[in-house]
Amino acid sequence: MTIKRVGVIGSGQLGRMMALAGTPLNVEFVFYDEAKVSPSSRLGETILPSNENSLDHFINSVDVITYESENTSVELVDKIIQKKPVHPGKSSLSNSQHRLTEKELFRSLGIATANFERVTSFEELEEAVSKLGLPIVLKTTREGYDGKGQALIKQVEDIESAWKKLQGKELIAEAFVNFSRELSVIAVRSTAGEIKVYPIAENDHSDGILRVSRVPANNLSNEKEAQAKEFISSLLSKLDHIGVLTLELFDTESGLVANEMAPRVHNSGHWSMQGAYTCQFENHIRAICGMPLGSTEMSQPNAAMINIIGKNGDSNRVLSLPNAHLHMYGKEERPDRKIGHINLTSQCSSDIERDIDHLKDFVTECGK
Amino acid sequence: MTIKRVGVIGSGQLGRMMALAGTPLNVEFVFYDEAKVSPSSRLGETILPSNENSLDHFINSVDVITYESENTSVELVDKIIQKKPVHPGKSSLSNSQHRLTEKELFRSLGIATANFERVTSFEELEEAVSKLGLPIVLKTTREGYDGKGQALIKQVEDIESAWKKLQGKELIAEAFVNFSRELSVIAVRSTAGEIKVYPIAENDHSDGILRVSRVPANNLSNEKEAQAKEFISSLLSKLDHIGVLTLELFDTESGLVANEMAPRVHNSGHWSMQGAYTCQFENHIRAICGMPLGSTEMSQPNAAMINIIGKNGDSNRVLSLPNAHLHMYGKEERPDRKIGHINLTSQCSSDIERDIDHLKDFVTECGK
Repeated sequence: MTIKRVGVIGSGQLGRMMALAGTPLNVEFVFYDEAKVSPSSRLGETILPSNENSLDHFINSVDVITYESENTSVELVDKIIQKKPVHPGKSSLSNSQHRLTEKELFRSLGIATANFERVTSFEELEEAVSKLGLPIVLKTTREGYDGKGQALIKQVEDIESAWKKLQGKELIAEAFVNFSRELSVIAVRSTAGEIKVYPIAENDHSDGILRVSRVPANNLSNEKEAQAKEFISSLLSKLDHIGVLTLELFDTESGLVANEMAPRVHNSGHWSMQGAYTCQFENHIRAICGMPLGSTEMSQPNAAMINIIGKNGDSNRVLSLPNAHLHMYGKEERPDRKIGHINLTSQCSSDIERDIDHLKDFVTECGK
Repeated sequence: MTIKRVGVIGSGQLGRMMALAGTPLNVEFVFYDEAKVSPSSRLGETILPSNENSLDHFINSVDVITYESENTSVELVDKIIQKKPVHPGKSSLSNSQHRLTEKELFRSLGIATANFERVTSFEELEEAVSKLGLPIVLKTTREGYDGKGQALIKQVEDIESAWKKLQGKELIAEAFVNFSRELSVIAVRSTAGEIKVYPIAENDHSDGILRVSRVPANNLSNEKEAQAKEFISSLLSKLDHIGVLTLELFDTESGLVANEMAPRVHNSGHWSMQGAYTCQFENHIRAICGMPLGSTEMSQPNAAMINIIGKNGDSNRVLSLPNAHLHMYGKEERPDRKIGHINLTSQCSSDIERDIDHLKDFVTECGK
């Protein structure tokens, strides 16, 4: 089996877990990032963008390039694709970076999404309110995640403060979606066009940060499950996407509503490291290296993931649980920082809930 | 969770898999080996023993030291333990390096083993033959593995050729054990003295090299299983062993007979990477770092491991099987060289046999 070399733009925990999953497939990793010491830096060479030759050095060191973040510079990717393939491609990346084009893409594929209006002035914001009704969420079209770059407008009095908070940036006003829970669907598409979809995850957020994912989502109807799989499959094909793609969804009475997509492995898919036959990281590497995809089916009937946020917590508590797996990212403690996660698997969903309860310090106290 | 630094003497596939399993526990790895490029070399720093300061540099770089091979120099370990802990300890290492003291240790603990005689001259060899009867196996007391350093004496005519082959070395003559199959039991002991034992593996060898391990061993009586666990537990405690220990066993009509032990993670335990809740590599790292041990129970009812020997074979064949996992070691092809392995897991042992059959090219053609 020939040794393949994958370049990763970024060197955080996603790069780290790609390298841990890809190394057994004879894949070697090179990271392109400003941080010399990082979660990935002991799992391959890191090339710092320190001078004009750095990028060429990076490109020449590898066979194929991927990235950790949907905020990866499209300009950078443009330069690389002259010389080496970048997966997922430019179209997946640029559509994910712009909330307006992303939502237009959803709409064009028949993927339900919140009603929305482009906002470039205070007058347009007032118009959007009258068209969409209240409440609405005002968002920057670019960047912003985990609740940043957003303002909720519940009543007419909130319009001005929302405008003051976000003006000067390109904005989108989105009708508020009345949802019962947040779900995500993760899928992978190979260079041969093969698609495999993971079971749908149910995600609990708090303070805008993912805390717990449970798989499969509790009591999800077959209809909605099929809908999620259809949504993501049509996106993968339309974008000619290669690698893992994540679609965040709202569960509503009238069906699933797409929130946003990320052209990458995703926090809500970390459960797959123990819970699926092939984890999202391995399948991402398989896909971008032109290998056949692995099974995305669950290896145990139930799985969950708890994020370790801000503080390490008592790791012995996790290590002592027979069906828990600890994944630390080699990062220092810092408020609101994702520094690790815990995977749980079980034959039985009540065991999972018992263990989440046993580890609730990680979900609550460590988290905030 | 504080970052711990583990030093590994050696940098082959065992070091590689220790690093892959230990990294998620915030353990960093430093390898001490002559090869700058090796299966482990992209997973941590490698310190070459190039000058008189190299060893001190290695010792100062880490918190605790372990090794890949039972042939690790006891003299080297003696130097290290002045400054840093080495696990497993010197007693485990030196007993494993000498077939005579190893067998005497087995005998002292009531662990059944083949009758044996020390042989230092041709006359003693003739005496051993008359005491033990024929056939016997003549072996060097030190080194030699995978069938090397051995001669089978079936009849009186073989005595001279066996002596010619091995004379000049310290030798042991062992009565031939009439066994139906080879088994191995792997266990781990923590710094707190906690012991966990993996299910017994059944091992198929060919040309003296392990080809396939199946877990659990087919139709092993509860009595024999208990015996294996007793054997290894008494060894672990007697040696004050910390880390993983492997005991190779012969299955005979009159019970289990110990063949040899290895103070390390073992090829016949590679199945545990998918088949057990906590693999042997993670448990070894947990043990030597003073963490609680993980469950050694199977996560699926059946597991198997196929060694990839000599040639890569058609890896897509493995990647296309839903319940197979490929583990390559980043090594070049070379006859008789272990360059990777395949793990299989299943609810049902007949699926495992079907998959082994489907992958029989790896067991036979690639192997030889």
